[in-house]
Amino acid sequence: MRNLEKKKDDNAKLPEEIIPGKGLLGRRALLRGALLSAGAAAASVGIAQADDSVGANAPEWMKTPGKPFSAYGTPSKGQEKVQRIFTIAPGRAGTGSSRTPLHLLEGTITPNGLHFERHHNGVPEIDPAQHELLIHGIVKRPLAFSLETLMRYPMETHIRFIECSGNSGIFNQAQPQQITAGELNGLLSCSEWTGVRLSTLLAEAEVTSDAKWVIAEGADAAAMSRSIPLEKCMDDAIIALFQNGEAIRPEQGYPMRLLLPGFEGNMNVKWLRRLNVTDAPVNARDETSHYTELMPGGKARQFLFPQAAKSAILKPSFGMNLKAPGLYEISGLAWSGASRIAKVEVSTNGGSTWTIAALTEPVLSKALTRFRLPWQWDGHPSTLMSRATDETGDVQPSRGDWLAQYAPGQQYHFNGIQGWGIEADGTVKNVYV
Amino acid sequence: MRNLEKKKDDNAKLPEEIIPGKGLLGRRALLRGALLSAGAAAASVGIAQADDSVGANAPEWMKTPGKPFSAYGTPSKGQEKVQRIFTIAPGRAGTGSSRTPLHLLEGTITPNGLHFERHHNGVPEIDPAQHELLIHGIVKRPLAFSLETLMRYPMETHIRFIECSGNSGIFNQAQPQQITAGELNGLLSCSEWTGVRLSTLLAEAEVTSDAKWVIAEGADAAAMSRSIPLEKCMDDAIIALFQNGEAIRPEQGYPMRLLLPGFEGNMNVKWLRRLNVTDAPVNARDETSHYTELMPGGKARQFLFPQAAKSAILKPSFGMNLKAPGLYEISGLAWSGASRIAKVEVSTNGGSTWTIAALTEPVLSKALTRFRLPWQWDGHPSTLMSRATDETGDVQPSRGDWLAQYAPGQQYHFNGIQGWGIEADGTVKNVYV
Repeated sequence: MRNLEKKKDDNAKLPEEIIPGKGLLGRRALLRGALLSAGAAAASVGIAQADDSVGANAPEWMKTPGKPFSAYGTPSKGQEKVQRIFTIAPGRAGTGSSRTPLHLLEGTITPNGLHFERHHNGVPEIDPAQHELLIHGIVKRPLAFSLETLMRYPMETHIRFIECSGNSGIFNQAQPQQITAGELNGLLSCSEWTGVRLSTLLAEAEVTSDAKWVIAEGADAAAMSRSIPLEKCMDDAIIALFQNGEAIRPEQGYPMRLLLPGFEGNMNVKWLRRLNVTDAPVNARDETSHYTELMPGGKARQFLFPQAAKSAILKPSFGMNLKAPGLYEISGLAWSGASRIAKVEVSTNGGSTWTIAALTEPVLSKALTRFRLPWQWDGHPSTLMSRATDETGDVQPSRGDWLAQYAPGQQYHFNGIQGWGIEADGTVKNVYV
Repeated sequence: MRNLEKKKDDNAKLPEEIIPGKGLLGRRALLRGALLSAGAAAASVGIAQADDSVGANAPEWMKTPGKPFSAYGTPSKGQEKVQRIFTIAPGRAGTGSSRTPLHLLEGTITPNGLHFERHHNGVPEIDPAQHELLIHGIVKRPLAFSLETLMRYPMETHIRFIECSGNSGIFNQAQPQQITAGELNGLLSCSEWTGVRLSTLLAEAEVTSDAKWVIAEGADAAAMSRSIPLEKCMDDAIIALFQNGEAIRPEQGYPMRLLLPGFEGNMNVKWLRRLNVTDAPVNARDETSHYTELMPGGKARQFLFPQAAKSAILKPSFGMNLKAPGLYEISGLAWSGASRIAKVEVSTNGGSTWTIAALTEPVLSKALTRFRLPWQWDGHPSTLMSRATDETGDVQPSRGDWLAQYAPGQQYHFNGIQGWGIEADGTVKNVYV
C-alpha cells in the first residue's frame, strides 16, 4: 500500500518508500514485493469519464473480451490448491475420509464442493427415480417414500454443521503435529440444509408405544447403519434433500440423507434407505468397532451423540507465518452440538489472560460461528488459544483434562483447547497448551 | 407411499392398493407410478443386524463399491438440468446475462456455480498477484491495495442478496409470459459474503470534506463503471473476497468485488480495480444508457439504488403442475434492499383474502427470506399471489400500480405482485393479477 499522490502526474515508477503515519496497519507489514506498475500510476490520474480509462497501460485482461458464460460455474484457476485434503489418494474408492481446507476458507458456509467426506465403501451412484425411503419396524403403518413424494411435504431450512466424531483425533498424539488447521480439524463442514422433518413422517407411520430407537441404513455398498434414539428423531431431525440451495451432493447422500443436528457425523446417515423403528439399538458395526470411547478401566463408552463445545483458530495457523509485527486479525470457528455458542475467549499469551472475541451474527444453534479479534503482534513469541462456551454452559477443557478421561489412544470426540505458537520470526507452529 | 405391513412376511409384489385414513397427504396424490420392488418388501422384514441387509434384492448400487473421493465435488448426474438459464448461448462472450434456476432450488443460499451472471464484456481471467485496488481522487492519501494486503485486514461476514435491476422486467409485457420462475426472476442470488469494510479503507485514504461520490471501476474489458454515493461506501459496503466460504468466483469478480448490500446488482462492481473519490457522479455508460427509469413525461429518473420490497412464489410455479387435489406447500422467496422482511402475505384466491406465511429464521436484512405456507388444494381453479412488506413499511404494489408510474416499456426495478393461476387440471400458468 503506497502513497501515490506525489506521482499522480507522471507514469514513472514509484520509489520504494513507505508511508509513515496513522494508517490502520503498520506500513512495513503491508509492503508489497513489487513496485506499482506504471499502468496503475497512470490510472490514478483523476478520470472525468470512466469509459476512457482503458489505456495502453491497462492490465492485459482489460484489452480483450473475457471468457464466456458457463452453465455451472467453477472456482478460479488461481484457487486450484483449494481442495479437499485426503487421507487416501483421490481416485481410490473404499473407506476413508477427506477434509475441508478450513484454513483456506472464510465465513461459516462450506461450499458444497469442499464439504468433508467420510465414506465406508465409496459413493453410490443412485438413480433417484428408483430410490425409496422405507419406514418400518414397530410402527402401525410401514411406509415407503419416493423422492417425488417427499418433495411434496412441507420443508424446513436450517444452517447446521456436521462434524465427524474422529475430527481432531490427532491431538491424542504425544507430539503436536505440524500440519494445517484443515488437516487437524477439517472433518467439519457447515451447510444450509433443507428437507422434511422426520417427526412428520414417523407420525404418519404411527410409531408404537414401545418404540425407543430407530435404525438408519444407507444405500451404499457398506449399508452403513446407526442406532438413533427415537427422541432425537422426533425432535429436530430432518430428511435432508437440499444443501446450500441445490440438491444434496452425491458425496453427501444424494438423493437424501438423515440430518441429526449436532450429533456425530456418522449418525447423519447418507443415501438414507431405511428407518427401522425398534425397542433397542442394533449394535451395528459402526457403533461398536468405531466411534466408541475407550476408558481407563478397559471398558468402552458407547452412544455418545452430541458433539461438545469446541473452537479452533484458523488465522493465523500452521503454514500462514507472520511476515512482520503489526496488526493481524485472529479468526476462527466455534461450534457446539447442543446449542448456540455463548462466547469465545482468545488468549495471545498461552492462557494467562483471555479476551472475548466478536461473534459474527447470526449466531445459530448447532451451526459454525465465526469469531474474530484484532491483534497487534509486537514481534515477541506468543501463544494463541481459543476457548468456546456454549449456551448450556459447556466449556472446552484443556487438552490434558480431555486426555485424562480416557485410555491412551482414544481418539473420538476431541474438543480440547488448541494452541498456535508464534515464534519471534513469525513462524506459526502447533503447540500443546 | 404404501402400507407394507400385511406383506411384510413374503417377497411377493404388493397389490396396487391405497391406504385410506389419516396420513398428512391425500393418498391418491402420493401414488407412485411403480410397484414397490420385491427387494423393498424383503427389506421391510425386521432386521436384527443392519449389516445383514444387503441381499439379492438390494439395489444395484449396494452391490459394488461406490465411486472414489474427489478433490472438488460436483452435483449428481441426476441434476444435469439444474443449470444457469441463458439469454445468449453459453460459450459466447460479450454482454448478456444468465439466471439462477430459482424454481429448482430450495432454502435461501445460492450455490456458487448457479449465481446469476451479468457481464458487459465477458469474464476477465485476472492474475490475483498482479491485481490491485486503487483508492484515489479527492483523498489525502491515494492508496493501492494488493490482494495479499487486503487479506491482512479485519473482515466481516454477511448473508446478502444481489439482484439485477432488470430482474423481472418481462412483467412489463402486455401478456404474461409462460416461462419458469427462474426465467422470470432469476437475476437474483444470495450468498454469504466475507470481506473488508470499505469505510476502513476510505478512512485510511482520508477522504476530503468535499467528497460526495465514489466512481467504482471493474478490471473487465468493458471497464464497467458506476457512481456510488459516498454515504453508502461509508455505511455497509464491503470489498468482498469470499463467497459462501471460498474465494469469490471468476463470474462474481475474482479476486474482489464491491458489495453494496441492497443496491441494484450492477453497482456491485466486479473485478474491482479503482475507487475514484469525487464530488460528482461520472454519468458512466451503465448509469445513463441502462438502469434508468423512463417516466411518462419523457424524462428519465437516474440513481435509484436500493431494490424495493419484493417476493415471488417458486413452488408451485410454471412447469410444476399439480397432479391431484391435496396438501401442497406454497413456498417462495422475499427480499428488500432496505431492511429485513417484516411479513409475506399469500393469497390463494386472487387477492380476496390473504394469509401470513411462515418466514424461515434467521430473517436477515438485505438477504433472501424463504416463506412457506401449507395449502390444501380442492381441485378448483385458484390464483396464488404473494405480497412482501419490509421493516421500513414498503409493500409490493400491484403490477398495474407499478406500471402506471412509468412510460411504456420501462423495465427496471419491477417489484409488482406476481400471480400463478392453477387450472382445474392442475396446470400452473403465469397470470397478471
